[in-house]
Amino acid sequence: MSKKPLILVTNDDGVTAPGIKALVEVMLSLGDVVVVAPDSPQSGMGHAITLNSVLHLDCLTKLEDLHKTYSCSGTPADCVKIAINEVLDRKPDLCVSGINHGSNSSINVIYSGTMSAAIEAGIEAIPAIGFSLLDYKWNANFDYAKPFITKIASKVLTEGLQKDVVLNVNIPSTENIKGIQVVRQARANWKEKFDKRQTPQGKDYYWLTGVFENLDNGNDTDEAVLKQNYVSVVPVQFDLTAHHAIQQLNNWNLND
Amino acid sequence: MSKKPLILVTNDDGVTAPGIKALVEVMLSLGDVVVVAPDSPQSGMGHAITLNSVLHLDCLTKLEDLHKTYSCSGTPADCVKIAINEVLDRKPDLCVSGINHGSNSSINVIYSGTMSAAIEAGIEAIPAIGFSLLDYKWNANFDYAKPFITKIASKVLTEGLQKDVVLNVNIPSTENIKGIQVVRQARANWKEKFDKRQTPQGKDYYWLTGVFENLDNGNDTDEAVLKQNYVSVVPVQFDLTAHHAIQQLNNWNLND
Repeated sequence: MSKKPLILVTNDDGVTAPGIKALVEVMLSLGDVVVVAPDSPQSGMGHAITLNSVLHLDCLTKLEDLHKTYSCSGTPADCVKIAINEVLDRKPDLCVSGINHGSNSSINVIYSGTMSAAIEAGIEAIPAIGFSLLDYKWNANFDYAKPFITKIASKVLTEGLQKDVVLNVNIPSTENIKGIQVVRQARANWKEKFDKRQTPQGKDYYWLTGVFENLDNGNDTDEAVLKQNYVSVVPVQFDLTAHHAIQQLNNWNLND
Repeated sequence: MSKKPLILVTNDDGVTAPGIKALVEVMLSLGDVVVVAPDSPQSGMGHAITLNSVLHLDCLTKLEDLHKTYSCSGTPADCVKIAINEVLDRKPDLCVSGINHGSNSSINVIYSGTMSAAIEAGIEAIPAIGFSLLDYKWNANFDYAKPFITKIASKVLTEGLQKDVVLNVNIPSTENIKGIQVVRQARANWKEKFDKRQTPQGKDYYWLTGVFENLDNGNDTDEAVLKQNYVSVVPVQFDLTAHHAIQQLNNWNLND
């Protein structure tokens, strides 16, 4: 039996995306790889799971492949659940998601299918990392990101992560990456705008668009260090309790 | 012009669900109500948003109605975004989501469309609350919940909420509700199980099922107080940074 770490790879851009291919290439240097990824793009899926529909799972592995690849009809979170329960014969040592085509910094972590897969693995007590490149293009260049991904993933494999914490890693799209910074999520927002159009039959419909607004001047944020061409590493938790707000609410005396 | 508070009501079970009808009844006693809710059930949608498809918005208001109602083809988070940008003529004083048919306690907050709507409003700096009844049935009895919803929503209208905090309120389905407790999210999990079946053509497919496991013995959790028939109020944050983990990661010296 292999002594190499078992690494589950998934994403939200779909199993055919160049970003997941690049991530698999890096992971093959670190362990045994199994890919379970959505059969179609799932961007903006947040932490959706499939409750009212069935899931299909297909093995795409070819004879010459160094690893097994499955496509799943569900969301990124579904992929992690079905991988753990129906595909892998043991608990993986690491789950990596990405490389996403586009940023998942600051508030985007909430909407991100890439990060929802990593969080789902974290809920299952599997060390997990989401990787995103700041380039939305399908033919983005993932090569400069690879050494940094190797470094961070290796560290997580050897050191582990704290309980209930996963990593959100964003990577500038440049050959001049200056290094890695551990930072917090910036307080930034999407300023939405709906593009209102009409169907050929004259009925209104809408496209969601928006502009990203960084309201955070801190220099210890993902947005700040990404602008300076550093890789940002944000530890992310899925206990959403705002512990600091409990006292205020207790002062309301809701039972009086 | 009305001096009453403007209250946006949404949910994830869809605009026709009895739960949202009950919530609207309560909110009409507190202010002016506008409903913008999904045109079909969206349970388990997490914080999904619609990026690769268009959104439809239809006004369902009838002449005799005391408030306006819109259905939207998108997710709960989409409903809040389009309500703020395309429906309401001013920023609402409160956004309430629910009443969900079924619990959104502990880890379910991550998967919950109900809570994603509340969080989306919170991101837009609108005081927001998600309400869920611990009864999955379509014909659940929402009457016993109503006085507690009135109390909590009134307090939020008068006192406000801390920045970047929304409330996750779960309500036991009983006439013997003992009171309200402010608590933290329990460390509980779904133990997934996939129900593997075959299509009439003989191809495997899967239904996601599971058993809920509470691994948390604390008596200050939502699970603990719900079991004792208290309403649970958990303050929820959407800055996911695990600040307590930053030091460990800095010790890794990732730039050496």
